[in-house]
Amino acid sequence: MTDRDYMSRAKQLALKAKGDTSPNPLVGAVIVKGREVIAEGWHHRCGCDHAEIIALKKAGRRAEGAKMYVTLEPCYHYGRTPPCVDRVIASGIKEVIIGTKDPNPLTNGKSMAKLRRAGIKVKVGILQQDLKAINEPFFKYAIGNMPFIAVKSAQSLDGKIATAAGQSKWITSNAARQYARKVRDEFDAILVGINTVLKDDPRLNGSRKTKHLKKIILDSSLRIPLKARLFARTAPSDVFVATTAKAPRGKKAILQKKGATVIVCPQRKGRLDLRWLFKELAGLKITSILIEGGAHVIGNALQERLVDKAYIYMAPIILGDQNALSSVVGIGTSDINRAVRLKRMVLRQIKGDIFLEGYLK
Amino acid sequence: MTDRDYMSRAKQLALKAKGDTSPNPLVGAVIVKGREVIAEGWHHRCGCDHAEIIALKKAGRRAEGAKMYVTLEPCYHYGRTPPCVDRVIASGIKEVIIGTKDPNPLTNGKSMAKLRRAGIKVKVGILQQDLKAINEPFFKYAIGNMPFIAVKSAQSLDGKIATAAGQSKWITSNAARQYARKVRDEFDAILVGINTVLKDDPRLNGSRKTKHLKKIILDSSLRIPLKARLFARTAPSDVFVATTAKAPRGKKAILQKKGATVIVCPQRKGRLDLRWLFKELAGLKITSILIEGGAHVIGNALQERLVDKAYIYMAPIILGDQNALSSVVGIGTSDINRAVRLKRMVLRQIKGDIFLEGYLK
Repeated sequence: MTDRDYMSRAKQLALKAKGDTSPNPLVGAVIVKGREVIAEGWHHRCGCDHAEIIALKKAGRRAEGAKMYVTLEPCYHYGRTPPCVDRVIASGIKEVIIGTKDPNPLTNGKSMAKLRRAGIKVKVGILQQDLKAINEPFFKYAIGNMPFIAVKSAQSLDGKIATAAGQSKWITSNAARQYARKVRDEFDAILVGINTVLKDDPRLNGSRKTKHLKKIILDSSLRIPLKARLFARTAPSDVFVATTAKAPRGKKAILQKKGATVIVCPQRKGRLDLRWLFKELAGLKITSILIEGGAHVIGNALQERLVDKAYIYMAPIILGDQNALSSVVGIGTSDINRAVRLKRMVLRQIKGDIFLEGYLK
Repeated sequence: MTDRDYMSRAKQLALKAKGDTSPNPLVGAVIVKGREVIAEGWHHRCGCDHAEIIALKKAGRRAEGAKMYVTLEPCYHYGRTPPCVDRVIASGIKEVIIGTKDPNPLTNGKSMAKLRRAGIKVKVGILQQDLKAINEPFFKYAIGNMPFIAVKSAQSLDGKIATAAGQSKWITSNAARQYARKVRDEFDAILVGINTVLKDDPRLNGSRKTKHLKKIILDSSLRIPLKARLFARTAPSDVFVATTAKAPRGKKAILQKKGATVIVCPQRKGRLDLRWLFKELAGLKITSILIEGGAHVIGNALQERLVDKAYIYMAPIILGDQNALSSVVGIGTSDINRAVRLKRMVLRQIKGDIFLEGYLK
């Protein structure tokens, strides 16, 4: 068993809480004495014990002289829980192997320094890339106080999301739609434009009942129906309606009374200012947002260079119609060399549908 | 070494002439005595010795009592060369292991029967699927006397082949374009519409100088410029211009004098009748055609259900513009469930570009 093996186990543990810890990161910890794993832990959700504490509690006095593997640098600051770094020092652990440094400026290397000052051996950077990848939103949010933004489209091979007559159900297969719901679980919130609500009346739920997805609707004139299905089986406080000054006051009051949060946004180039909104949502501890449509909303977010990641699901069909609605509109690239470009793409095929993930610059 | 191993070797040999044997199939043969390979052969090009004959000539008298592995059933009929089946019988070979039965009605099992009648042991069906795959055009052409038809598009992730202003150079990378030229080598002919010629003036060459690709232009009113680059370094007899009765006679005569073949086609639904044209081209021993555009030509071929295979190259970019030209147009699917659908898709990623191949129903 090497450092990588133990860290890999810690990563596995961290992933057990995938989608559940926001705004906190996924963290896993393994305590090893000799070559034996004597305790393990992972952070379950915000407000609960951190991974290190869970593992230390399990290890008890046996922690003395042991090594701790932890996927992220232990915290240095008082949050909902006291600083883990002090608990690690107090436990008698003699060596701490850290996956990645905590990007949060409140910790960011300070705990590593404190551990070393306490005479504890510290190693850092094992499985670093993998461990950043499982906490993508956290690494962006903790540094820039902006949510991690992804866009998703479900389209034909020729980039269409509906026939010219407007039929969109269903471009992709049932299996692809199920997969898409699982991807939702990894985000704090789903965002759609009001036209998507009016046309498709989507529920916008994840795949698990225990996952309380926040729902964000861009709705500049508050046209959202009070009986929209997205309100069903959702805590009203999980619904955020982003609007503009032109929203009728009465409707705003009704939505607020229902328990939804109405955010009045400034405009930019005649559209709701997405950058402003995302900053605002970050302030409300929303660390990651999946934009599911429509084509204009995705286009706007891409054009404003606000997007970190794209999920494109392609059904193996060709609509072959210039007038059928394209998956992304409103960018209007005039120069191919300046087009929106994806990097680090991953391709998969599931039951004939194509799944493509990639990152924006 | 099993039967599959020897057949796999025969397949490798067959592939040495990839792109060179039309209208004949790729065929490889291996002669084995005991466990030793005593001779090998493959069909180089139409008019040359067949694979079996090359191997038998190499083996000479040693063929007596040996086994022959051949990827396709030996021919039964007199073509440019005498029937291979008789030469195999005369050689003293005692067992023939055949990959696939020859679909050509002139042979189609008759050689197998004749070999058996001559007391030779015959086995058939080793690596059958693979061996059909390397001779896709032949298997279609030999049975239905229609060319194998593929379409190719090079597009953005959102299915666009040019910006709204018409810029199309270049959507895909240099590496992708090189790969696309290699794919051309596998076909007898490339087909484009006249608008592609007028707009891009493409050379339509393959990747190898030794490959003489035929070039087919759909040009209902004979607008083709006599100085189009597709004529350069091309035998005039390799250029086929498909037109209609509305073509001016003078231009037709000029093209014919230049050495090009002008085919006057009937119309169907106001467009040049592609099915009629393909049948005509099959008569001219064109067994496979790669349609490279434009979007309307591809759409028309797909709608007429004439297409066997699709190659879609996607650059990792998003143009995000409803008005940018879509990769396939003119089908106008009104019901998603009846859309053109691809099967048996293969995905690859080369230097960031996505390569997708699939078959039509």
